[in-house]
Amino acid sequence: MANSKYEYVKSFEQPDVLLPNTWIVIRIDGRGFHKLSDRYGFVKPNDRRALDLMNAAAVEVMKELPDLCLAYGVSDEYSFAFHPSCQLFERRSAKLVTTIVSTFTAYYIYLWGTYFPSTPLQPAALPSFDGRAVMYPTARILRDYMSWRQVDCHINNLYNTTFWTMVLQGGMSNTDAEQELKGTVSADKNEILFKRFGINYNNEEEIYKKGSVVYRQFQLEDATSMAEATAADEEDGPAAPASRSQQDKIRKLRRKAQVVVDHVDLIKDEFWARRPWILSGKPGKLPTGAQ
Amino acid sequence: MANSKYEYVKSFEQPDVLLPNTWIVIRIDGRGFHKLSDRYGFVKPNDRRALDLMNAAAVEVMKELPDLCLAYGVSDEYSFAFHPSCQLFERRSAKLVTTIVSTFTAYYIYLWGTYFPSTPLQPAALPSFDGRAVMYPTARILRDYMSWRQVDCHINNLYNTTFWTMVLQGGMSNTDAEQELKGTVSADKNEILFKRFGINYNNEEEIYKKGSVVYRQFQLEDATSMAEATAADEEDGPAAPASRSQQDKIRKLRRKAQVVVDHVDLIKDEFWARRPWILSGKPGKLPTGAQ
Amino acid sequence: MANSKYEYVKSFEQPDVLLPNTWIVIRIDGRGFHKLSDRYGFVKPNDRRALDLMNAAAVEVMKELPDLCLAYGVSDEYSFAFHPSCQLFERRSAKLVTTIVSTFTAYYIYLWGTYFPSTPLQPAALPSFDGRAVMYPTARILRDYMSWRQVDCHINNLYNTTFWTMVLQGGMSNTDAEQELKGTVSADKNEILFKRFGINYNNEEEIYKKGSVVYRQFQLEDATSMAEATAADEEDGPAAPASRSQQDKIRKLRRKAQVVVDHVDLIKDEFWARRPWILSGKPGKLPTGAQ
Amino acid sequence: MANSKYEYVKSFEQPDVLLPNTWIVIRIDGRGFHKLSDRYGFVKPNDRRALDLMNAAAVEVMKELPDLCLAYGVSDEYSFAFHPSCQLFERRSAKLVTTIVSTFTAYYIYLWGTYFPSTPLQPAALPSFDGRAVMYPTARILRDYMSWRQVDCHINNLYNTTFWTMVLQGGMSNTDAEQELKGTVSADKNEILFKRFGINYNNEEEIYKKGSVVYRQFQLEDATSMAEATAADEEDGPAAPASRSQQDKIRKLRRKAQVVVDHVDLIKDEFWARRPWILSGKPGKLPTGAQ
Repeated sequence: MANSKYEYVKSFEQPDVLLPNTWIVIRIDGRGFHKLSDRYGFVKPNDRRALDLMNAAAVEVMKELPDLCLAYGVSDEYSFAFHPSCQLFERRSAKLVTTIVSTFTAYYIYLWGTYFPSTPLQPAALPSFDGRAVMYPTARILRDYMSWRQVDCHINNLYNTTFWTMVLQGGMSNTDAEQELKGTVSADKNEILFKRFGINYNNEEEIYKKGSVVYRQFQLEDATSMAEATAADEEDGPAAPASRSQQDKIRKLRRKAQVVVDHVDLIKDEFWARRPWILSGKPGKLPTGAQ
Repeated sequence: MANSKYEYVKSFEQPDVLLPNTWIVIRIDGRGFHKLSDRYGFVKPNDRRALDLMNAAAVEVMKELPDLCLAYGVSDEYSFAFHPSCQLFERRSAKLVTTIVSTFTAYYIYLWGTYFPSTPLQPAALPSFDGRAVMYPTARILRDYMSWRQVDCHINNLYNTTFWTMVLQGGMSNTDAEQELKGTVSADKNEILFKRFGINYNNEEEIYKKGSVVYRQFQLEDATSMAEATAADEEDGPAAPASRSQQDKIRKLRRKAQVVVDHVDLIKDEFWARRPWILSGKPGKLPTGAQ
Repeated sequence: MANSKYEYVKSFEQPDVLLPNTWIVIRIDGRGFHKLSDRYGFVKPNDRRALDLMNAAAVEVMKELPDLCLAYGVSDEYSFAFHPSCQLFERRSAKLVTTIVSTFTAYYIYLWGTYFPSTPLQPAALPSFDGRAVMYPTARILRDYMSWRQVDCHINNLYNTTFWTMVLQGGMSNTDAEQELKGTVSADKNEILFKRFGINYNNEEEIYKKGSVVYRQFQLEDATSMAEATAADEEDGPAAPASRSQQDKIRKLRRKAQVVVDHVDLIKDEFWARRPWILSGKPGKLPTGAQ
Repeated sequence: MANSKYEYVKSFEQPDVLLPNTWIVIRIDGRGFHKLSDRYGFVKPNDRRALDLMNAAAVEVMKELPDLCLAYGVSDEYSFAFHPSCQLFERRSAKLVTTIVSTFTAYYIYLWGTYFPSTPLQPAALPSFDGRAVMYPTARILRDYMSWRQVDCHINNLYNTTFWTMVLQGGMSNTDAEQELKGTVSADKNEILFKRFGINYNNEEEIYKKGSVVYRQFQLEDATSMAEATAADEEDGPAAPASRSQQDKIRKLRRKAQVVVDHVDLIKDEFWARRPWILSGKPGKLPTGAQ
């Protein structure tokens, strides 16, 4: 029995290949996590278990997809970055996005019990995530994207920390706290925290202030000038894409590297200059004793 | 602290709204399920537990997204259909696909233990799914798409049933069975099953032969002429999209309907003629006593 | 000398194939025609020479591209429609749009002297056009598109006719006329024309009131019910696309038909019911004596 | 009379904005120019009048669109490049492509008589062009694109020069010449030209060997290292897009520069190093006495 009569429907599938030689960022977001965090009793302003679970799922995604070179997470969102030279799934957008969203979701559900041992998942309210792919043409813009997310993390965390301290320690109503914070700048919030509650915001945990950076660990380089690092990167240029065997070799090297979670500044040059393999896409040297 | 300096990166997010007034089908596929079915010891040629798990996850997706009007599953794939009038997420492609993929994955992982009580998931090999969205301009083509999948189900199942019977009951090697089946047509396979093993393929379970159809149950209509049913549908045409309050009302009615799993023919007219709410997008009458 | 070192740049060309089985409308617009109509002294509110030149160019486009089944023009814009079964240029969007825009421009420039014999083109101000492709999934929506343009034609022409009569015959300033017309409805404008200037808008020329419809002339059918006409069309559905030889045959028949310019109502059913070949995509019978 | 009933059809127009901060190349090609060059008696292997007409049209396009920073033409094709910072028409693809195709066509038709005074255009065979837009993420790839076209120019011109010399001067049939050239490399063709016909290919006209480069003329810089030039360019990066007033100022400066046609090497660094305004997008100094 031939299927040919109906096979014409395949022609409706449209290609969705992302532009070659651009950075690809897949950003995923928790669906309805505001409500979900209430239902599962997430601690305010930050629930360490929930963040650790997000990070654990992200680490597994990084391990399953060695083509990924960086991930950055804050709150219920995570951004995964592929290097411009990435050829995974022929750069088909839907395939890349759904693979990451599904793998992340699978680990999030599977690992839930490890991080919330006394709060079982409820079948009518399972966590899930949506996602999208965005292209960035240069390393400079990729870095600006990451800076954007990290600045956002800072802004939100300072606000949330102040708000919840006013409510939980200061006994204010949500509405009153919201009202008082309207129009304030960073300095105002720092002052409220310090003067009223003796809290120095700078001493808050780095994971809350900086978010979580996930990457493969190779030997750190001396902090060279960033200009040098990116210029080299951009100039070599793309030229022809790497051959399949080159790609396989690179993948193998990446698999050997440990995936680490860090809470560090992504805005200044230092992070990138000391870890040139992230922007270059070329694996570094494995730390001594790592093999 | 303003974020404006980096906010320009948002301009790189490109719109991906699907064409209005077209059917949207989201098809998801298990990633590496060939290998995975070996690892978890899926029964050949069909593992009832695995199919039931797929169906259970699909039912949950249908419940969470009342905008869905039909789903069809076979093996490790599932197709979910939105009506042309669907406005969910402003019809953004990535949002629709990832929501379905993630929700499906979440339930698949969560319900695994119910269907495989003695085969726990292994952390290094979690199941996951990829997916894509395709548009079909008319009800006729949407039906041809569903027919395509169901014919495929039939072709594959007849082959697999014959192959595994030759191997498991006939004691043939995989290679020998494959060799003998090369070039055979349906009648040949039916004859092998019947003459050698006394198996009448027609008596195989419907879920294996037809796959699984998931939809909301309203009162069945008398089988009217299909021509009438689709013509009415097409002619009313789209006109302006439904208002938000109309959409909400329709969603509410859909939520009340029971989501059922059926193993029936989708190729002939009868299925569609008796369930006109699927192609029309207008909820039918709830079965007596359903509220 | 091999070119292979640079050939990788071809991979940056992204596919732009339009969804199969949808109507394709290419709408082109004069660039900066407001200024241009001043420069070349177009008569207000309608310059018959300019419209005739637009129509002449459109007729040539229809002749060069037998796949086109309808065109509608008003002012400095023209819409060209391809049937859902069209396979021209594999339905590549840029190829279809640019071919029409370029062919139209070529004839517009070439024929300029015929319609404006005493107003030569000025090298620093050549007319040009931009364009875009839009897909419409059903015949109903294609008709609504054409209705949209024709209603727009009517609204603009009634306004312009009234405005310019007030200015040119009534001696009002542009500002005063504009001011008085602000907020008026059709009836008001009809009354101004009739009471003040003795002009019955209904007696204005059809080309100004209705715009210009361009199509291939086959034998008119008796006005059958439109419902019948489109229903038949939609139900036959697309099925597999026509073979190359079928397409060639259809193209040949279309080339034989005369391309005509008409100024008729496109909103009601009659136009479409009497010319079923437009919506069906199947050539009708050639008028007696046409071969 | 309101148009709202039909206005929903506007929702079918899909956005086609090109990715920000990428180079945009619009390449246009003559439609059916093989046949057309026969019909109008173009000289083989190169018709100087036809090339001059192409160049004249390209110069006018450059003048009308100051956002263009470079164009390269060979045979019946022309590539126009916009800088990554270009915001023209909000970077809408169809608008950019059709504007260039239509403007080019208008001038090609209008200027035809100037370059072919004794060969009038024939109404049934007007020249026309199609086109497409392609994005290139970095200056390196943009240069590789230009190199690709120029290498192609060289390969084709060497072949055509040899072929037509063998036919026109050597009296060979087309088939015999084609046969003999099959499998030859550049050195072979150079030898045929030199040994048999005393032609030194190097002495052929530059316009045939190199194609035509069109750009705005500012004061040439000393040939600095290219590395410096692009690195500077890439690193400043995009940051926020230029304001509207900045764009206007830049446009004004560009309009003042003379548009020149050159037949020079685009592959080596020198061209780009001495004209840094092309890759930087920042206008240079006007040549003394140019204002």
